Amino acid sequence: MSRFEVLLLGIGAALPDRGRHPSAQVLRYEECFYLIDCGEGTQMRLSDCKAPKQKLNQIFISHLHGDHVYGLIGLLTSYTLFNRQTPLDIFAPEGLEEMIAVQLRWSRCALSYPVAYHVIDTERHCLLFEDKYLQVYSLPLSHRIPTSGFLFCEKPRPLNIRAEKIEEYALDFTQIKQAKAGQDVVLSDGRLILHTELTHPPASLRRYAYCSDTAFDERLPGLIQGVDLLYHESTFDNSHEMEASISRHSTAAQAAEIARRADAKQLLLGHFSPRYPDEGLLEAEARVVFTDSTAGREGRWYPVGGGL
Amino acid sequence: MSRFEVLLLGIGAALPDRGRHPSAQVLRYEECFYLIDCGEGTQMRLSDCKAPKQKLNQIFISHLHGDHVYGLIGLLTSYTLFNRQTPLDIFAPEGLEEMIAVQLRWSRCALSYPVAYHVIDTERHCLLFEDKYLQVYSLPLSHRIPTSGFLFCEKPRPLNIRAEKIEEYALDFTQIKQAKAGQDVVLSDGRLILHTELTHPPASLRRYAYCSDTAFDERLPGLIQGVDLLYHESTFDNSHEMEASISRHSTAAQAAEIARRADAKQLLLGHFSPRYPDEGLLEAEARVVFTDSTAGREGRWYPVGGGL
Repeated sequence: MSRFEVLLLGIGAALPDRGRHPSAQVLRYEECFYLIDCGEGTQMRLSDCKAPKQKLNQIFISHLHGDHVYGLIGLLTSYTLFNRQTPLDIFAPEGLEEMIAVQLRWSRCALSYPVAYHVIDTERHCLLFEDKYLQVYSLPLSHRIPTSGFLFCEKPRPLNIRAEKIEEYALDFTQIKQAKAGQDVVLSDGRLILHTELTHPPASLRRYAYCSDTAFDERLPGLIQGVDLLYHESTFDNSHEMEASISRHSTAAQAAEIARRADAKQLLLGHFSPRYPDEGLLEAEARVVFTDSTAGREGRWYPVGGGL
Repeated sequence: MSRFEVLLLGIGAALPDRGRHPSAQVLRYEECFYLIDCGEGTQMRLSDCKAPKQKLNQIFISHLHGDHVYGLIGLLTSYTLFNRQTPLDIFAPEGLEEMIAVQLRWSRCALSYPVAYHVIDTERHCLLFEDKYLQVYSLPLSHRIPTSGFLFCEKPRPLNIRAEKIEEYALDFTQIKQAKAGQDVVLSDGRLILHTELTHPPASLRRYAYCSDTAFDERLPGLIQGVDLLYHESTFDNSHEMEASISRHSTAAQAAEIARRADAKQLLLGHFSPRYPDEGLLEAEARVVFTDSTAGREGRWYPVGGGL
């Protein structure tokens, strides 16, 4: 199975405290790496966690609160010190380009590589980006400022051929290619062989949803039904539901309720308020609602579609 | 003697690497604390080094390169999360206010306290700020963008009275106050007693100079003659003098030559390029020119006017 996993660089809310860092994650699919959010100090966190900083070619920013974006300018300018040439795509709500441009202008810094800014319409669920492995969709969230979550969907890969069938039917290169592409094959004697006989059944397509920051949002389960791994913010415990509502954040139980309604396979909690020295309480409250809930840990890789 | 010392939060150049952090320092005079530069992650460094974050009421920014300023927005917004009310003065070259304002606007963040921006004329050596303890002067530096160093000058304190003289001349409260203020005293019998007889000799006034980033600048020694502690950038070793010149930085020997010409008492080196895993080479090269040279260490307090 292809390597599909996420590294949590920062799971703290708002203030860097309790040894936690602001929001940032690296998603990996095989040899491709994508950055999700970029709080202050993310470039140091990438080094600390030995993530391949130079291989990040797409950056997805959920919203323009500082704890999700203030580390971006430092990362972008450091790339220039390394004379990066590879183009960079940045997906973010409106405003990021101006935020970055003003800082570059006053620092008199010209980036050594091209950056394409893609403005996310945070009211819509739509395709943002696609490469050979993944499709990335926006997820409208409910926060104090325009905010988008992200849904990373594995794309169908070529089917795996059954070795014994190559011999049995004396398949040539073209026929193998047809079968792997999901096409039925006509043999030289005229027989039609269904591709389902020639190949292993396709693996189910895995999906990862990143939902931070957001209040409890009833639209969400419909957009991420059956998702393999859901990272959902869990800033507060149950006793702070009112505060969560006012600040447009979620409690651990609300995160779990989203996971339950979405029929998610696993829930990963994060974005913890500094008031919680450890995340045990939040994990416990989530598990009452949704069993497969886990409090995220910084510096750890989590498989998408495997057990946590 | 009053407590006058500086804490190095970050001594790295440009890139956070080799375990070094970008430029930031806390200067302390008695119960007053001042921040000098604010590279990315400074708010975390303040916590790591147990510096009193909330007591910083003046921030001095040398220039708008990222490794000296990208941590400021995070510090300012974190203050708001703590509902800071105390006004903050920020001294910086032109542009900082716009850099900060644009980020606050897109983050839709209103600071909870007033900020006064004071634009430094980086071509002039002049008084920027004064309180009961210190006067702070700008120091024109030679870098790729407008840059100012800072000279922190201890102000004259009241003289200390000699206890035995109070008894000898039966001095009253008013007479003691006069003597401490440096005025001669007329006794009730008409005798004039010189204040120099009544008081201990004044301590010499200590000064701290912060000079980063800069190329070798011949104007500097004249502005900081006899300075007690000079922090001077030392990005490169002697073999990279050409690179230093092109990038408008200094070698360790050039920093030492400034200290020598300025007749400084101590030189503290910093702003080390990541190419140097340890600072021993730079310290050694500086000591050839100026004996009292020390490579700075992060997290350490250095007295101004004492031995290092």
